[in-house]
Amino acid sequence: MNRFFLTIEYDGANFIGWQKQNTGPSIQECVEKAVESFTNSKIILYGAGRTDAGVHASGQVAHLDLPNKFSSYQIMEAINAHLINTKIKIINVQLVKKEAHARFSALWRKYRYFILNRQAPPAINQGYVWHQKITLDIEKMKVASKYLIGTHDFSSFRATHCQSKSAVKTLDQISIIKKKENIVITVKARSFLHHQVRNIVGSLKLVGCGKWEPEYIVEVMNKKNRTAAGPTAPAAGLVLTEIKYPQKVYL
Amino acid sequence: MNRFFLTIEYDGANFIGWQKQNTGPSIQECVEKAVESFTNSKIILYGAGRTDAGVHASGQVAHLDLPNKFSSYQIMEAINAHLINTKIKIINVQLVKKEAHARFSALWRKYRYFILNRQAPPAINQGYVWHQKITLDIEKMKVASKYLIGTHDFSSFRATHCQSKSAVKTLDQISIIKKKENIVITVKARSFLHHQVRNIVGSLKLVGCGKWEPEYIVEVMNKKNRTAAGPTAPAAGLVLTEIKYPQKVYL
Repeated sequence: MNRFFLTIEYDGANFIGWQKQNTGPSIQECVEKAVESFTNSKIILYGAGRTDAGVHASGQVAHLDLPNKFSSYQIMEAINAHLINTKIKIINVQLVKKEAHARFSALWRKYRYFILNRQAPPAINQGYVWHQKITLDIEKMKVASKYLIGTHDFSSFRATHCQSKSAVKTLDQISIIKKKENIVITVKARSFLHHQVRNIVGSLKLVGCGKWEPEYIVEVMNKKNRTAAGPTAPAAGLVLTEIKYPQKVYL
Repeated sequence: MNRFFLTIEYDGANFIGWQKQNTGPSIQECVEKAVESFTNSKIILYGAGRTDAGVHASGQVAHLDLPNKFSSYQIMEAINAHLINTKIKIINVQLVKKEAHARFSALWRKYRYFILNRQAPPAINQGYVWHQKITLDIEKMKVASKYLIGTHDFSSFRATHCQSKSAVKTLDQISIIKKKENIVITVKARSFLHHQVRNIVGSLKLVGCGKWEPEYIVEVMNKKNRTAAGPTAPAAGLVLTEIKYPQKVYL
């Protein structure tokens, strides 16, 4: 058997999220079924990050083991052929070492959050942006975001049902750029708490629209209580864009 | 009465094109009905460019006359409220002089064509790109595109049912850029022949995949015959992005 990393792009709108559950269609189940259709045997797909219902990905990674007879090219073609009428595609397949693990070998994850900041709602990118009518002050949002960089107890930005043992996480990077009416917030960390990105975005939005001063974000963080932070930003604006692995995992 | 320029963004996928016809829903008809729903009187919308079925726009412009009592802000809000469940939105409303005309006052139009150049088909941007599996040589495409700049008889790149009196047009700009797996072809001209952009893209693609040498595009142009050029690229990859007017049209 060979182990492969699949890079997966998907539109999360009509899925209950990455992870297989009994409540509806998941990305994991869809891809597993596509693989099983061409290999005729049961497989398990191990994902690097569990994206929520409605969250998209342009660079989700998952690993699986397949018989030696298949090349990377064949695997991508065969899986995509079985995913033809879905909004899930395998965009890269790489042979990795037997001990490589999509979740545990990851060095960091990167997410992007897209805000459309103009009077009119979106016509073209419906389902991929959070529409904000009020002009957001991104300079203030940048100031607030700087307080979040580094190692902190992120309890205020963590979903109440989050299963992580500790709320202490290290946020490596957070950048906010605006091009015309499009705001993009990029965050990078080894790992994230459940809803952490969307709760951070929901809080930065309160800074951007003038409800909070940038410094207030420190107070929010110090309260270590979910009710202190802003509301969770909608899933549709969020994309898991990249997961980084050490060079040594690849064959 | 006041005259306004509306800037309109739309996803052309489920429309027969900009222009009102008996064969199905058009952008023009949809917007006219939305305006009529809030003004309670018949209006006519004059569009700057007649995009084809399936072609998108992020900057289509159209003009109309409305009673003096409405402000630009109110007009945008009211029309968008009536377009709520559609993929058409008014993104800007500007008061213009009575003699300003969306079609005839335009200085130039800009279109962008999007190609996704990778093995896997799109998951996220389905309906907005032309998927090309073979790696296109964009340096060769750039060389070919340079021959098209300037004033030429574009008969080879004109739809057989094009109603324009002359096939002589001046192409001001054509640029091709590639970022990772995304190729964007931008073209700018005072006006275009029917299918001109999509026929140019279809021909440049034949250069990019090595079927034609870049110089062959000159021969294609000199033949002044539609059958000499490449096939028409699909509508889904094309977006009307901008229409420029002289400052004097605005009030």
